[in-house]
Parts: sequence; C-alpha cells; structure tokens
Amino acid sequence: MTDTGDLAARVAAWRERIEGELSRQLELSDPGTPRLLSAMRYSTLGGGKRLRPILVYATGSALGAAPAPLDAAAVAVEFIHAYSLIHDDLPAMDDDDLRRGRPTCHKAYDEGTAVLAGDALQALAFDVLADAASTLPVAARLQQVQVLAHGIGTAGMAGGQAIDLEAVGHTLDTASIEAMHRRKTGALIQASVLLGAIGAGITAGAQYEALRIYGAELGLAFQIQDDVLDVAGETAALGKTAGADAARGKPTYPSLFGLEEAARLARHHRDTAVAALPVLGTRAADLIALADFVVSRDH
Amino acid sequence: MTDTGDLAARVAAWRERIEGELSRQLELSDPGTPRLLSAMRYSTLGGGKRLRPILVYATGSALGAAPAPLDAAAVAVEFIHAYSLIHDDLPAMDDDDLRRGRPTCHKAYDEGTAVLAGDALQALAFDVLADAASTLPVAARLQQVQVLAHGIGTAGMAGGQAIDLEAVGHTLDTASIEAMHRRKTGALIQASVLLGAIGAGITAGAQYEALRIYGAELGLAFQIQDDVLDVAGETAALGKTAGADAARGKPTYPSLFGLEEAARLARHHRDTAVAALPVLGTRAADLIALADFVVSRDH
Repeated sequence: MTDTGDLAARVAAWRERIEGELSRQLELSDPGTPRLLSAMRYSTLGGGKRLRPILVYATGSALGAAPAPLDAAAVAVEFIHAYSLIHDDLPAMDDDDLRRGRPTCHKAYDEGTAVLAGDALQALAFDVLADAASTLPVAARLQQVQVLAHGIGTAGMAGGQAIDLEAVGHTLDTASIEAMHRRKTGALIQASVLLGAIGAGITAGAQYEALRIYGAELGLAFQIQDDVLDVAGETAALGKTAGADAARGKPTYPSLFGLEEAARLARHHRDTAVAALPVLGTRAADLIALADFVVSRDH
Repeated sequence: MTDTGDLAARVAAWRERIEGELSRQLELSDPGTPRLLSAMRYSTLGGGKRLRPILVYATGSALGAAPAPLDAAAVAVEFIHAYSLIHDDLPAMDDDDLRRGRPTCHKAYDEGTAVLAGDALQALAFDVLADAASTLPVAARLQQVQVLAHGIGTAGMAGGQAIDLEAVGHTLDTASIEAMHRRKTGALIQASVLLGAIGAGITAGAQYEALRIYGAELGLAFQIQDDVLDVAGETAALGKTAGADAARGKPTYPSLFGLEEAARLARHHRDTAVAALPVLGTRAADLIALADFVVSRDH
C-alpha cells in the first residue's frame, strides 16, 4: 500500500537500494578477469536514472510486496539495460564515444572487452534471476526468466535494435517506428513492470493484464519522450534543431511527426498506460506518478 | 538404458533430431527483422559437430530419459554455442573470416547484425529453456536456467573468453591456460552434460556430482584436442608447423607443452572424466564412448 505524497522519498530509497544491490551482485560474481569485471562495473555502476529497477520496486510495492524479494528482478533488468547500452554504443552499432558524460565502454576499455562485458551481463541477469538462494517460489522465478528472455530477444529488445540498425538512412512509416520503439525500449520496460508484479505474487489475471498494457504503453511513451529530448535538449543546449539521432539519419518521432505532435503522442501513450490501471484501485498511485514523470522529464 | 554397439546410430539420430529442433525453434521465434533471423539461422543451421546437444541427449538417455523432454536443453546449448562463435569471430575478438568453410556471420551480414544475432541467440536459449510449454517440472527447468547461466557467465564461457582475449601475445603458465580452457570451452560442455541429467530427473546426488566431474574433464580434454588439431591439422594440410592460434600469438597446450605432451594431457583428462562414471554402472557406456571420440577425433 502506498502513500502518494511520499513517492519522491520512495524513489530515492529504491535508487539507493538498487545501487547497493548492483554493487553487491557484481562483488559476488566471479570476476572472469579483473578487466572484464571492471568493464562490467564501469558500465553498470556509472549512474543512470535506474528507471527499470524503480519500475520493478514500484510495481511490486503497489501490489504489497516488500523490496527484498524484488531485488533480484531489479538487478536483472538493470544488468540487461547496461548490456544493451554497451553493445548499442559499439562502432558497428551507434558508434558512440560518450555515455552519461563518460567514455563509452569500448572507449574506456576496448571493443572486445565491451562485447564480452555485455555478453556476461546478459548471462548474469539470468543467473541472478534464477538464483537458488532467492526467496521467491520456483514457479515465479521461472516465469520471471520467461518474461525477461522474451522481452529481450527477437520479439523485444534485440529485434527492435535490429529494426533500428537497418532503419538508418531510411524513412519508416508510422507503424514501423512504433513497432521499433515498442521493441527496442518498450519491451524491457514492460518486462520490468511484469517482473515486479510476479515478484509480488501477481502472475496472471486482470491486474497482470492491466500491468502488461501499462508497461507497454509506458515504454513507448518513454522512448518517444527520449526522441523529443534528443531534439529539444540539443536545441536548448546547442542552438541546433537536430540532435544525435537526426545526425545519424535515424528515423524518430519528431523527424516523422514534428516535435509538438511527438510530445502529444508521448502524452497519449501515457494516458493509455494510466487508463489500464483502475483495476489496481488506489494502489496505482505511484505507477500513475511514474508515468507522469516519464513524459514530463527533461533528461 | 543404452546398447553400446549402436552408439553411432544413436548419435546420427540425435544429430538429425537436433537439426530439426534448431530449425523448428527458429521458425517459431519472432523474426525481429528478416535480416536478423536470417543471420541467426545462417550461424545456427550451418553445420557443426553438434557435440553439446549430443551430450544433452546422451546423458539424459543414459539416465533413462526419452529425447523429447531433452529437446529444449539441446537447442539451448547449441544456440549458446552458435552465439559464442559469432561473437568470437568478430574483428574485435578473433577476427575470423571463415567458419566451417563459409564466411563468418559478420562477413556474410555485417558487424552490427552479428552482434545482435549473438545477443538474440543468448536470449532465445533462455527463452526456450524456460518455455511454459515444456513438459519438464518447473524446478528442473529453473535449475537448467541456473546451470546454463552460471556456465556461460564470468565464471564460465565469457570469463574464459576474456582470459583468452587478454592472453594474446602473452605467455600463460599451466594453471592459467587450464583455467582458460576450463571456462572458455569446458563450462558449456559441462553445462550440456548437467542439463541432460536434470532433464532426466537427476538434479543432485552422487550421479549428478559424477557427471559434474565428467563434464568438466571432458570439456578440458575437448579443448586441448582442439589445440592439438589446430597444429597437427595445419601441419598435415599445409606443411606448416603452426596453425591459426600460434599465428595469433595465442597460448595453447601445444605451444606450452609440445604436441605430444598436449595429446597425452587430453587423454589424461579423458581418463579422469571416465573415472568419475562407475557410479552410473553400465549406463555410462555411451558417455565413455563419447569421451573416447573427443580425444581421438581428427576434426
């Protein structure tokens, strides 16, 4: 049961909790080599909004779960997110030198190490989720593995990344860019919400289905807002009208619809996300507030 | 229960079975993009010994299981193997242009697609293993996820690959090269054996522990024999005394011990593998024969 007035305090507590848990799990992990583990730590502990773990905690908490049984899922989705950023930044992909104001993993280390750090983080996510020491029931942990694996494979994150990679320099129609965003970013955000639900014992039924819709629409809203900020952020900071995506010839919501309509679409998907939540009753308050944050954030 | 006389026929049947299962699972999978799925199919269905799936079937069969409940594990370990080859062949890693006589994935497609195809195959392996439609008990499937995730992370395959990457141009001592081989190749072969055991309902106890040793020692023997063939194979075919590993400055068993001693060490680890098996009684016959194949093979 949540008290909406204190969401900021709860988010701060979850963020502190996830920082500790990420660090702890990397401590527990076999290092492979010191350099490999260092690269994994560099890319995982280097800051970030921690939106995905916060969604795990917020969803689980809304459904009455304590944080402890949610820790493994929170760590797993952030490991997956970190791995996806490492690989997306590679020269063969987005070829980015900077991430969160620091050199990207392949710049700070080397390309081979970056490939392996991403690969190892994906494996570690499943390792943590399936861990024999977890307090969650076996069936819940297996379902979390299913949901995560499905969300990051061809039907989800990797598939969306492939659409993205192949779209550079091309024009996508509305259906295609929406499909790309739903997979590339939306699927892991949706999985984060569902992993939190499963961690709270909600594994099917009306609430689970509502959260499936909430997660998908929230994920899409998040990525559209990311596109908007890529343009608007750059404009404010540099006086340019186009940011990194446009420079790469990547189709985005603003490039397809214009900035204003893109921002409206982000709010529209926020509304659709929130419209799914009445079945949760007053417990949905934090999830509504997080949806508002996603479309109103400026970074 | 096995009939040793017919091992060759059983291996042929398992090989045919795994080809069908790999193809079927890739058909069932969401394509992401046609190009992504094409790259995944190219790298997975392009031949190979299929040693890892055969070990799943052979171990499960030795413990009394039918092939059907072993299919998911057999597919999963081969998807992981295919992903590891795609990423190992990348320019930032071994920089290989040819694999099994055909262009490597990043040559046939492109580097970005190759990175994603490997990433997606890792996710698909866990997806298949955790699949809700599996006939295995939930606890067994979760244990298979645990064993696979552990075997391919920092403590296993990815960690070994990192040692390998950092060892180029350096000399490793005996303990380090053994540790590298145990992780890089041995850990997934060991996981294949254990996934077969779990698929047959053997999830702990004396037989499971025996198979853990068998898998680890077999995996090490396999990689040493690989090193031997890299030299001896090249020598026979090209009249050179050193193969691709030596050309890359990679430490190998032959470079450290000489060819003859390396071959002896492969047989030694085959013997240690087989020495663990008496607890399985006569059912171990196929596993002993496969160990013999691993150290006597010429390709």
